[in-house]
Amino acid sequence: MTPDPKSERRSERARRAILDAAFDLVSRKGFAKVTIEAIAAQAGVGKPTIYRWWRSKGAVVLEAMNEELGDDFAFPDTGDIAADLTTQITAVTQRLITGRISEAFKGVMGEAQNDPALMKAFRETILEPSIAECRARLDSAVAAGQLRSDVPTDVMVDLFYAPIHYRHFLGFGDDAVRRSADLVQDVLLGLQPRSDAG
Amino acid sequence: MTPDPKSERRSERARRAILDAAFDLVSRKGFAKVTIEAIAAQAGVGKPTIYRWWRSKGAVVLEAMNEELGDDFAFPDTGDIAADLTTQITAVTQRLITGRISEAFKGVMGEAQNDPALMKAFRETILEPSIAECRARLDSAVAAGQLRSDVPTDVMVDLFYAPIHYRHFLGFGDDAVRRSADLVQDVLLGLQPRSDAG
Repeated sequence: MTPDPKSERRSERARRAILDAAFDLVSRKGFAKVTIEAIAAQAGVGKPTIYRWWRSKGAVVLEAMNEELGDDFAFPDTGDIAADLTTQITAVTQRLITGRISEAFKGVMGEAQNDPALMKAFRETILEPSIAECRARLDSAVAAGQLRSDVPTDVMVDLFYAPIHYRHFLGFGDDAVRRSADLVQDVLLGLQPRSDAG
Repeated sequence: MTPDPKSERRSERARRAILDAAFDLVSRKGFAKVTIEAIAAQAGVGKPTIYRWWRSKGAVVLEAMNEELGDDFAFPDTGDIAADLTTQITAVTQRLITGRISEAFKGVMGEAQNDPALMKAFRETILEPSIAECRARLDSAVAAGQLRSDVPTDVMVDLFYAPIHYRHFLGFGDDAVRRSADLVQDVLLGLQPRSDAG
């Protein structure tokens, strides 16, 4: 069967309108206050059109967030690992707190605590690609002798990123989340080769 | 007006029955599947009785979780900070993953992402008392020369606890959460006084 190009264009337009409406509504009203009905109304489609493509509000909002993020998870590489980690972690905290995706992220993660399929989709589309980029950068810093080689880089990723998400999820407030970038120095104290310690 | 002791006893019995029902249902079915109606039915009270004392399902379950935890947040003190942190963090991860409060905790934290009053109550009744106990233990380790004195102990608390919650909230799976206690050694690498580094 030949696909009908006109209907494919129509589908793509509807999909785009749904994701735009979901992202806009969640950003303005917060995840909890947005319904599938409201997304459908703003997108100019029926509710069944949404449920044909997504299983839940969380799934629509995750995809909208993904489109907003794009697929560029590249980690900065100036040759100075301390500076690059600070740059990157500052950018991530800004994005979480004040960025356009902040409400969507909070909503999706809240839902994902009780929805394993949504958590799996979040990990596959956002978390794991980000971790892979970070590990690649840490590997090159280990190779350059800027980080010790006896702590696995996946453990290092956890040590650098955990404080941001811990402070964010456990309600420490925006200032504390923003200051997560300051912790890079404290974590580095333990991860730099001992020979540098003087 | 003299309070009526019989009606006070009745109230306390109802309150207890509601908290027991909430905890039991959430532990067995998971937070998302439990309704206020189901809690009321199992407790043998009407829905209005629940809403007279609590504003939401999250609030009832948080209080049920608090009763289960008790008010003992004491941190072990054997004189060896590395051993005590490992003991405590192992206990916390076990409680989060397999403990009786695991479902309640996941549910409350999911809700709290979109409910600031619930987050505030969680912080005041559970998180802040735990942090205070941990800081007191870290302060005594700093005084004993087992930890460096130039990193504030509130930052140290974040470094030790963040990996558990980060792995738990971001869906790393039970094994990774359990292995958070292994990270104590990696974090300590940076927090022990340099003179010990050899």
